[in-house]
Amino acid sequence: MQIAILLFENLTALDVIGPYEVLSRLPNAQTIFVGERVGPVRTDTGRLGLVADATLADVPHPDIVVVPGGFGQTAHMTDGPVHQWLRTADATSTWTTSVCTGSLILAAAGLLTGRRATSHWLATDQLPAFGAVPAAERVVFDGKYVTAAGVSAGIDMALALSGQIAGDAAAQAIQLGIEYDPQPPYAAGSPAQAPQPIVEALRANSDHILFGR
Amino acid sequence: MQIAILLFENLTALDVIGPYEVLSRLPNAQTIFVGERVGPVRTDTGRLGLVADATLADVPHPDIVVVPGGFGQTAHMTDGPVHQWLRTADATSTWTTSVCTGSLILAAAGLLTGRRATSHWLATDQLPAFGAVPAAERVVFDGKYVTAAGVSAGIDMALALSGQIAGDAAAQAIQLGIEYDPQPPYAAGSPAQAPQPIVEALRANSDHILFGR
Repeated sequence: MQIAILLFENLTALDVIGPYEVLSRLPNAQTIFVGERVGPVRTDTGRLGLVADATLADVPHPDIVVVPGGFGQTAHMTDGPVHQWLRTADATSTWTTSVCTGSLILAAAGLLTGRRATSHWLATDQLPAFGAVPAAERVVFDGKYVTAAGVSAGIDMALALSGQIAGDAAAQAIQLGIEYDPQPPYAAGSPAQAPQPIVEALRANSDHILFGR
Repeated sequence: MQIAILLFENLTALDVIGPYEVLSRLPNAQTIFVGERVGPVRTDTGRLGLVADATLADVPHPDIVVVPGGFGQTAHMTDGPVHQWLRTADATSTWTTSVCTGSLILAAAGLLTGRRATSHWLATDQLPAFGAVPAAERVVFDGKYVTAAGVSAGIDMALALSGQIAGDAAAQAIQLGIEYDPQPPYAAGSPAQAPQPIVEALRANSDHILFGR
């Protein structure tokens, strides 16, 4: 089972590492980080390099596709190598997935038309412009398309997907292996829970938070 | 505020990326990934390269030190460059932290003697051999030493630490920015919650899970 995780400049690291840490532990999983070029790409903070081990052309038919978000998402909203790869890979994939604003890329590539999907809570309202049906949920399954909310939601998405692929016991073993017993010190992880002044501050700054501009 | 995140061969990626994704969003934070050599190190699955941008010697006095675990932890349990760097860095650090079996490295370097600390649930009982006092908690603060439980616990640790450093509102804004509203599909993230056959299976396989052997 080949799992292709897309890397591009200025992605958000946790968007890919959450799913990677879960899905790489599935039986017979072969995760591979792919990019337009082999070699390091820098994340959205500029402070970390993640290495693409293969080009898009090297991995045309993965079983699972994982698309992250981050500032760099904006560079992949029009037709180009990433869209072309996504459409080719999606034609034969078993699961096509995204985390955070990665769903905007999938939608812009034409893969979420008429499908329910989620995204970072600040970006969900942008999905209809690309033909998707927004759902303010943490993980959304619609057929073989699985989208996760912002950044950290990729962990929950990957565990739910692991259950679909390998059964509950296998997914539970992975969860216990990575000791995923979350105990956030605050109840501030969603706009419904967080203090409203903080929600409003992030809304006012959403262009910077989502797109780095 | 310089935050040095240690990389070594065969580390667990999420151990470092969880804290990185949180701490890099602190005001005035300058995160830097450090290693014995500059360049990519491979994670414990062999399927991912993370790039060290600086050598240990380049970053002798960070304000915050983050030490991960993973299979490669076993290579850093005796005196050597990593221990020497940790002792030097710790002498002037504001916070010295670990995720997963990174606490075993800190303890072996002599930095947790007599201190309460945690680790991956399968490894907590190894802490006393290195002079630390084991605590089966997700995040343990003892003075400036902050240790987190297995793999995913680094996110909770870093949010709690962010609160200490920058105040509750700043930490809550980070939590909302990464949409950390965890909704695991199973209640299997700790040995107390997970189905007991799965707990026993992981215990029986702990040498492989922790150390890759």
